[in-house]
Amino acid sequence: MLDRTPIDLANETAEAALRADYDSLGERLARAGLDIAAIKDKAARFAVAVPSWGVGTGGTRFARFPGRGEPRGIMDKLDDCGVIHRLTGATPTVSLHIPWDKAPAADLLAKAAEWGLGFDAMNSNTFQDQPGQLLSYKHGSLSHTDPSVRAQAVEHNIECIEIGQTIGSKALTVWIGDGSNFPGQSDFSRQFDRYMDSARAIYAALPADWRLFTEHKMFEPAFYSTVVQDWGTNYLIATELGEKAFCLVDLGHHAPNTNIEMIVARLVSRGKLGGFHFNDSKYGDDDLDAGSIDPYRLFLVFNELIEAEGKPGFAPAHMLDQSHNVTDPIESLMVSATEVQRAYVQALLVDREALAAHQEANDALMATTTLKRAFRTDVEPILAMARLDKGAAIDPVAAFRASGYRDRVAAERPAAQAGGGGIV
Amino acid sequence: MLDRTPIDLANETAEAALRADYDSLGERLARAGLDIAAIKDKAARFAVAVPSWGVGTGGTRFARFPGRGEPRGIMDKLDDCGVIHRLTGATPTVSLHIPWDKAPAADLLAKAAEWGLGFDAMNSNTFQDQPGQLLSYKHGSLSHTDPSVRAQAVEHNIECIEIGQTIGSKALTVWIGDGSNFPGQSDFSRQFDRYMDSARAIYAALPADWRLFTEHKMFEPAFYSTVVQDWGTNYLIATELGEKAFCLVDLGHHAPNTNIEMIVARLVSRGKLGGFHFNDSKYGDDDLDAGSIDPYRLFLVFNELIEAEGKPGFAPAHMLDQSHNVTDPIESLMVSATEVQRAYVQALLVDREALAAHQEANDALMATTTLKRAFRTDVEPILAMARLDKGAAIDPVAAFRASGYRDRVAAERPAAQAGGGGIV
Amino acid sequence: MLDRTPIDLANETAEAALRADYDSLGERLARAGLDIAAIKDKAARFAVAVPSWGVGTGGTRFARFPGRGEPRGIMDKLDDCGVIHRLTGATPTVSLHIPWDKAPAADLLAKAAEWGLGFDAMNSNTFQDQPGQLLSYKHGSLSHTDPSVRAQAVEHNIECIEIGQTIGSKALTVWIGDGSNFPGQSDFSRQFDRYMDSARAIYAALPADWRLFTEHKMFEPAFYSTVVQDWGTNYLIATELGEKAFCLVDLGHHAPNTNIEMIVARLVSRGKLGGFHFNDSKYGDDDLDAGSIDPYRLFLVFNELIEAEGKPGFAPAHMLDQSHNVTDPIESLMVSATEVQRAYVQALLVDREALAAHQEANDALMATTTLKRAFRTDVEPILAMARLDKGAAIDPVAAFRASGYRDRVAAERPAAQAGGGGIV
Amino acid sequence: MLDRTPIDLANETAEAALRADYDSLGERLARAGLDIAAIKDKAARFAVAVPSWGVGTGGTRFARFPGRGEPRGIMDKLDDCGVIHRLTGATPTVSLHIPWDKAPAADLLAKAAEWGLGFDAMNSNTFQDQPGQLLSYKHGSLSHTDPSVRAQAVEHNIECIEIGQTIGSKALTVWIGDGSNFPGQSDFSRQFDRYMDSARAIYAALPADWRLFTEHKMFEPAFYSTVVQDWGTNYLIATELGEKAFCLVDLGHHAPNTNIEMIVARLVSRGKLGGFHFNDSKYGDDDLDAGSIDPYRLFLVFNELIEAEGKPGFAPAHMLDQSHNVTDPIESLMVSATEVQRAYVQALLVDREALAAHQEANDALMATTTLKRAFRTDVEPILAMARLDKGAAIDPVAAFRASGYRDRVAAERPAAQAGGGGIV
Repeated sequence: MLDRTPIDLANETAEAALRADYDSLGERLARAGLDIAAIKDKAARFAVAVPSWGVGTGGTRFARFPGRGEPRGIMDKLDDCGVIHRLTGATPTVSLHIPWDKAPAADLLAKAAEWGLGFDAMNSNTFQDQPGQLLSYKHGSLSHTDPSVRAQAVEHNIECIEIGQTIGSKALTVWIGDGSNFPGQSDFSRQFDRYMDSARAIYAALPADWRLFTEHKMFEPAFYSTVVQDWGTNYLIATELGEKAFCLVDLGHHAPNTNIEMIVARLVSRGKLGGFHFNDSKYGDDDLDAGSIDPYRLFLVFNELIEAEGKPGFAPAHMLDQSHNVTDPIESLMVSATEVQRAYVQALLVDREALAAHQEANDALMATTTLKRAFRTDVEPILAMARLDKGAAIDPVAAFRASGYRDRVAAERPAAQAGGGGIV
Repeated sequence: MLDRTPIDLANETAEAALRADYDSLGERLARAGLDIAAIKDKAARFAVAVPSWGVGTGGTRFARFPGRGEPRGIMDKLDDCGVIHRLTGATPTVSLHIPWDKAPAADLLAKAAEWGLGFDAMNSNTFQDQPGQLLSYKHGSLSHTDPSVRAQAVEHNIECIEIGQTIGSKALTVWIGDGSNFPGQSDFSRQFDRYMDSARAIYAALPADWRLFTEHKMFEPAFYSTVVQDWGTNYLIATELGEKAFCLVDLGHHAPNTNIEMIVARLVSRGKLGGFHFNDSKYGDDDLDAGSIDPYRLFLVFNELIEAEGKPGFAPAHMLDQSHNVTDPIESLMVSATEVQRAYVQALLVDREALAAHQEANDALMATTTLKRAFRTDVEPILAMARLDKGAAIDPVAAFRASGYRDRVAAERPAAQAGGGGIV
Repeated sequence: MLDRTPIDLANETAEAALRADYDSLGERLARAGLDIAAIKDKAARFAVAVPSWGVGTGGTRFARFPGRGEPRGIMDKLDDCGVIHRLTGATPTVSLHIPWDKAPAADLLAKAAEWGLGFDAMNSNTFQDQPGQLLSYKHGSLSHTDPSVRAQAVEHNIECIEIGQTIGSKALTVWIGDGSNFPGQSDFSRQFDRYMDSARAIYAALPADWRLFTEHKMFEPAFYSTVVQDWGTNYLIATELGEKAFCLVDLGHHAPNTNIEMIVARLVSRGKLGGFHFNDSKYGDDDLDAGSIDPYRLFLVFNELIEAEGKPGFAPAHMLDQSHNVTDPIESLMVSATEVQRAYVQALLVDREALAAHQEANDALMATTTLKRAFRTDVEPILAMARLDKGAAIDPVAAFRASGYRDRVAAERPAAQAGGGGIV
Repeated sequence: MLDRTPIDLANETAEAALRADYDSLGERLARAGLDIAAIKDKAARFAVAVPSWGVGTGGTRFARFPGRGEPRGIMDKLDDCGVIHRLTGATPTVSLHIPWDKAPAADLLAKAAEWGLGFDAMNSNTFQDQPGQLLSYKHGSLSHTDPSVRAQAVEHNIECIEIGQTIGSKALTVWIGDGSNFPGQSDFSRQFDRYMDSARAIYAALPADWRLFTEHKMFEPAFYSTVVQDWGTNYLIATELGEKAFCLVDLGHHAPNTNIEMIVARLVSRGKLGGFHFNDSKYGDDDLDAGSIDPYRLFLVFNELIEAEGKPGFAPAHMLDQSHNVTDPIESLMVSATEVQRAYVQALLVDREALAAHQEANDALMATTTLKRAFRTDVEPILAMARLDKGAAIDPVAAFRASGYRDRVAAERPAAQAGGGGIV
């Protein structure tokens, strides 16, 4: 599906300069007592999951402007995800969304095997009504006042677990749109009690080796209140459900100005960090490409993760969750995976011994300078060399463009219709 | 279309209590030197336009959950708008959106006449692609890099003016989604220059007795930058275009914590306040019902408008612009029109002479208490009596529910399909 | 100290109109099945504590502009607090701040008895350095890296408890400024561990019938991170400390757009709501007068409290915590106490049976209208009548101005110096 | 005052590694068609002014924790500023604040000459009351209701100009705290009219070769409204005053989520950008060290400035304006000056031809990648080499610590008292 020739040709052209940059960076790092090869190996092992829905063009409530060659279904989506992994070497798993991605397990596994892909967390959907669905989620799902609606939503989540078991997934991510648009519309406490009842029912169906990730979000689609509005409520949920329940942090789901890295640290400290939906944002849940707006914030999140490495049971899931409205989704996902990997590698460079000493001495200036030094290191040669080593592309976007993949699938896949978003 | 009988019956039942409340309020106001009848007359003359698109159920990028009896087109929409006006007596005009509301002028005028409605500002749409549209607005419209796209967008706006002229409209409202999702995607200055060129071309086509309203918005659908991002840029536009150009203030289009009433005062002071899109919001452009989240803020806006009354050329347009996702749109629009009217009447009660004296004396406590006294007056008897006088409903929502209108149109109008919003 | 004559004269003048308003409101409420006398009795029993520091003029980091007759110490402050209670009848207790208010217990009790006052929660201060203090809190207090500093801060809190025991207080409020100004300055987890150690030491010293209130705050005086940054961390603290530990909610300590009433509901649901620091704000911790910026939000908080009334152990503390920079502090505190009481009474008027039915039926419009109806009721006659009944002032501000109290204390108390705030 | 020996010794030790890094960076840049020497020369010419008040320890309304060796007056401050310039080579001018820095012109000039310093913009102060001041600014200054207060404030600004003329300054920066804390406290329009009258009086006194910089700020010290609240109002002021009036942008004075770089572009496009007060912030006007919270935002601001380079009359002033509460002010100012310079140099590396082509082609991904490539380049070798060339320190903080300067001045200058901030 993806011709290796243009990748190899481009790599050959770029290799000499890359090796020069890699070597000079290696010398600089060595002066600081760091072994570039060891860091490159860690970079090579770093992985972030791609969301199946991310390879389609996203939209807003105002409009959706489709791109060329949009995937027609999960098989096309897996092809696109495969391309992303082939070119970046950083995205070995795909996260499915049910019912969007329903397909026979054998077909899913076969297609994934073609590309060397596995399956990450399953995602349920009770924030939309599907054709033929018996009861509507207009007024809520897991927290609906009507027990029949809650039962339907619970059942759907259990089905997601069952599907996931057939394809090797080990986690269920639950994000709901439940909330309210008006003061008084919902009784906060009774609504949360209902949510907890439903969550317990789902948790009870979780296999022993699975994890449940619940996701908090400040607002949207509900605009006055959201049932799982912040990490505080998310923590309540994860604690009260049990040891297989964890909090998922989507970087775009917080109030303005929130110190997200501190939330990460709090969840780590109480053993309840499940993982991330990576993306970036300036205003709300903008779902922009990871690291595109505030790359230092992404680094600070990884600074916490590196700090926590080695803690018992610490194994946060890395997933991208973005909406690509004006770019080629494959390109955006490749760049985003690389940006997440970049933040990880930058955080590896932090001199933690020096940092701890500055913190202990209340030397704020040198402590923050210690972080900045790691952050401002241009680790691109490490990332590129890790890619080259595994036969991925030194420059994934250039290789993708040279590959002609988009033209090819645009020819095969019929053009999608422009859509009006939610407002019409 | 709307049986008067249930309205009249309900009014008869409620009239005695209303008169008692009205009289006791009249006595209280008289003690403060205020004539309740004069205020009631002003309330009766107050009007706010209903947006044609507001009578359909709204949605988010995640989903749209249709309601019962959704309007199939502009004729149904005008019926719904007519009901709103009949029951509230406060919404004598409708604001159309092109191309959604395209229809022969004669048909529009005839249907409007049935309900005693007129037409308010025209709204153009260059934030979506329409079926059959030659060039896409995916990367912008009035500020697109491609002059052909800009020309198409300008042409569409001129068509809106032309349609408006056939139905008695006197204003064009321009809101665009142009902006960018990534740092660097657009050159801010060149993009704005292109916008100004297009705006000048539209302005040139404006009839002598028309006004042009441009609307600013901080974000959405663009998530890194918006071309007309705030009142500062909006003011530049209105000033540089000419004396028929004015700024439109949508209450939900500002940064968190923004003092909107102060922006209103600034625009009034420079003669550039065009009018409002009323709604309420807690997080972003939530488009909730006017006054539902922060009624005091709505009052403070009207406090500025009453302060400015009588200034030469001061004639701001009042329009609702909301998205009704979980309520019956007709009910929400009736309540919202009433809430806007309520804020207006409360602002009329402010003792402006006392307020000015407290301001002059820097007596902040008494100044703010003067506003609060007006705000906390329950003016519902005034609003209800104004409605009763014109044959509208004392309790519009109750009357609407009693009327059976929704059931009737639900039987006539086929059920709409649930939609997936922009993300699928 | 406060002549009753002008109060009585003013009450006599105003009484007739008040009785007329009270009666007509009584009739309206009776139509809704509500007994105004019962509500008035509840209003009369409602109490909110005044902070001793609130009667002095506040300031910002830029400047402090003193007022006339500023209290010279805790005895003057208690006089001012007594005036507030005498005129409003709503503030029977005072909350002390140590070391600012240190004085012999007998003197404190005697002065309080003069005015019929009691003592509310004690407040410790480890966010400033006091003259003669051994170790500095520049780099933290309860979470400082140096165990000696932590011990000093713990010791101070224990001293506050001891002082409080001598004057009948039953609670300790702990707010600290600990945090960091730079990424990396502090290790979030170790810092929080240190905080917990200190908190446990304080908790261990708490008498059996006392409660510990910990307070969260998003930012200021620390500007990158705060140790107790939000209700999530505050909940962790209260849960891990034990059953005498509760969360205090200051309305101004949250991120922009935060739904505070929902936090209240969550804390109530888990039995961890300790109480409130009431104030209002538009931007940050502005410490403006309660209800002055967003009165509906204050009402929505009380809506949750009324909803929770009767739950076992539910007894939230009500305290004002404001900074009066441009008004007479006594006047602001009187008005603020009344606004808090107003929100309480409005929330009492909510038809909870109807509300629950609308919630159950997902009738968002009628649910929110049910709240709004209560909110827009002008309950001033109830509040004023409750004051009149207990010999307080129908119009506290007018009575205060007529009393000549401020002039009298201005003559006794020497003028304070203007200050430069923190920046010089 | 500052021994060169430790600087030179440290430079000698570090020089070899620096040259290696510089050379390898030079090769990388050369591959991209960039001449590192030319960039280094531009870096060397880049300058940012230091605020005289910045070398003292700052504080909040809660407390001020003094540092060691705090400057006793303007002469000490100039010494500290001189050290900053000597070690960074990037801060050749100092911005004075009147009345804090009043001193005989000859003394100021002599002391500045010792260190090779000049004087930047003058800053007036009408946000505090000074001992002996006739009228108070408690209720405003340039916009006060009382014409005598306004006259006093205007007079003070004119005095600042006069002082500035004696020491070679060419600009006056006006920032006021005027605003209001309560709805209704001030009439927005009349207040702004009064402000404009005062501003015109100051403008009239401006020498022909001077510029007037007015500064906007969203909030603090006023917490409901600020007279010059945003760039829109600031633009009105600059436009209506005349061609010597310009807008100053302080990075911390905006609403949450504001796109500041876009404001910069708008002001540039209309010829009204006066310059900057650089700092960083996470919540409000936190006044943290430049680039310490969001370095990419600082880069994006400079991206606009480089884009605008060469426009006629484009000469924005660069000034730091920070509050150093927990670090050594000299160290923070050195690091901050360097961070501003870093952003400038990174912005110089942007391939503007490629960027423009991507923008024209709506290739958002490559456009933003073009910016990111420049941003992620570690330009420290360029900055360090520019410093080395002029005899400044390769590592200014290390050199400062080695110099013993702080110990020396701590011995000379008596310890300052801890302060209580504005709240006590």
